[in-house]
Amino acid sequence: MATDAQQACFEAGIKFGALYHQFAGTPVSPASAPSLETAIEESIENQPFCEAVTVDIHTERLDTDHGYTELTGEYMDVELVVDYEDREVVAAMTMQDGYPLMELASVE
Amino acid sequence: MATDAQQACFEAGIKFGALYHQFAGTPVSPASAPSLETAIEESIENQPFCEAVTVDIHTERLDTDHGYTELTGEYMDVELVVDYEDREVVAAMTMQDGYPLMELASVE
Amino acid sequence: MATDAQQACFEAGIKFGALYHQFAGTPVSPASAPSLETAIEESIENQPFCEAVTVDIHTERLDTDHGYTELTGEYMDVELVVDYEDREVVAAMTMQDGYPLMELASVE
Amino acid sequence: MATDAQQACFEAGIKFGALYHQFAGTPVSPASAPSLETAIEESIENQPFCEAVTVDIHTERLDTDHGYTELTGEYMDVELVVDYEDREVVAAMTMQDGYPLMELASVE
Repeated sequence: MATDAQQACFEAGIKFGALYHQFAGTPVSPASAPSLETAIEESIENQPFCEAVTVDIHTERLDTDHGYTELTGEYMDVELVVDYEDREVVAAMTMQDGYPLMELASVE
Repeated sequence: MATDAQQACFEAGIKFGALYHQFAGTPVSPASAPSLETAIEESIENQPFCEAVTVDIHTERLDTDHGYTELTGEYMDVELVVDYEDREVVAAMTMQDGYPLMELASVE
Repeated sequence: MATDAQQACFEAGIKFGALYHQFAGTPVSPASAPSLETAIEESIENQPFCEAVTVDIHTERLDTDHGYTELTGEYMDVELVVDYEDREVVAAMTMQDGYPLMELASVE
Repeated sequence: MATDAQQACFEAGIKFGALYHQFAGTPVSPASAPSLETAIEESIENQPFCEAVTVDIHTERLDTDHGYTELTGEYMDVELVVDYEDREVVAAMTMQDGYPLMELASVE
């Protein structure tokens, strides 16, 4: 059987995979980034055990030559908090070496 | 060669297919529906020739047994306006016989 | 009312938008590209009025530093054929100036 | 710091969330289900630490009234194996009470 801490980590992973693959490819511009940040946060917070999601789209990195860019990990930082049976997991996604790395920040 | 009106219809179709397949599957609840409506509208309006997008999520139809529902055509009406070289196309998506039907409403 | 040719163009657009936003972001490598090409073709060919879809993933352009790449328009060419009430539309997606351009190739 | 077993559970969760939200909404019919199963398996197996993915689409449940159905958790079972620093996690998704439940099957 998995421990509660392992379950909490599994749940945190689900939220990250869901968030990324649901919203990657969404057309985004500096003007529309705020509404997309809010929608991503609120939609993923609906999922079980998800306490909080914070999405920060780096509007200054968005290509504006064609008016908009397709959202990828390159353009956003994400932090989320999962609470499962009193175990709290914080996980974060940031760019490392050109790859959007999802990592466990803390398991408590 | 395609006419301007045909191009406008093609562009309207692209927006509908994009909107539907980008956002279908997004977790949504009555509380998070407004931010998702806004984000869908503003993201698709970024696309070329897209003048306006209106998304109406039917929160009263959302299953709240599990706290949220995955967005599908069953839960939203969409209308969009495309303007291509002075030809304006209005297109709409509504449920018909259990299937989310995308239709041209007018080509002017 | 829209003409049959305009309807055909609208349907072609829907298929393109659907194809792109359903599959953009999919992890792909040179080894997995063939199965993804086939799945994209066969899934979109399910849609109404869609006669044929051809997807060509440029495996030589895929970054293999991290073992795989997320699929974007940069890595694939697509051609599709729609048949609506005896009007045939051929449409294609290719990269132009760093942007995946979807175009009507012929309306007959 | 997270343990290797917790990391393995996190990675398994990421794969599940990615798989589900990348492919939910894909048009699927009994005829196209096999190519989609293969593409899902091979695409997710590209991700780090992912040893094996098995997708079983229940073609007998697919609605064929409109020729195809949009893929959701209702129509597929998934099992995947993650290997992280010699810790092996097996996770599965099955329908329970109308909800696609993702669960840890074993952590070793």
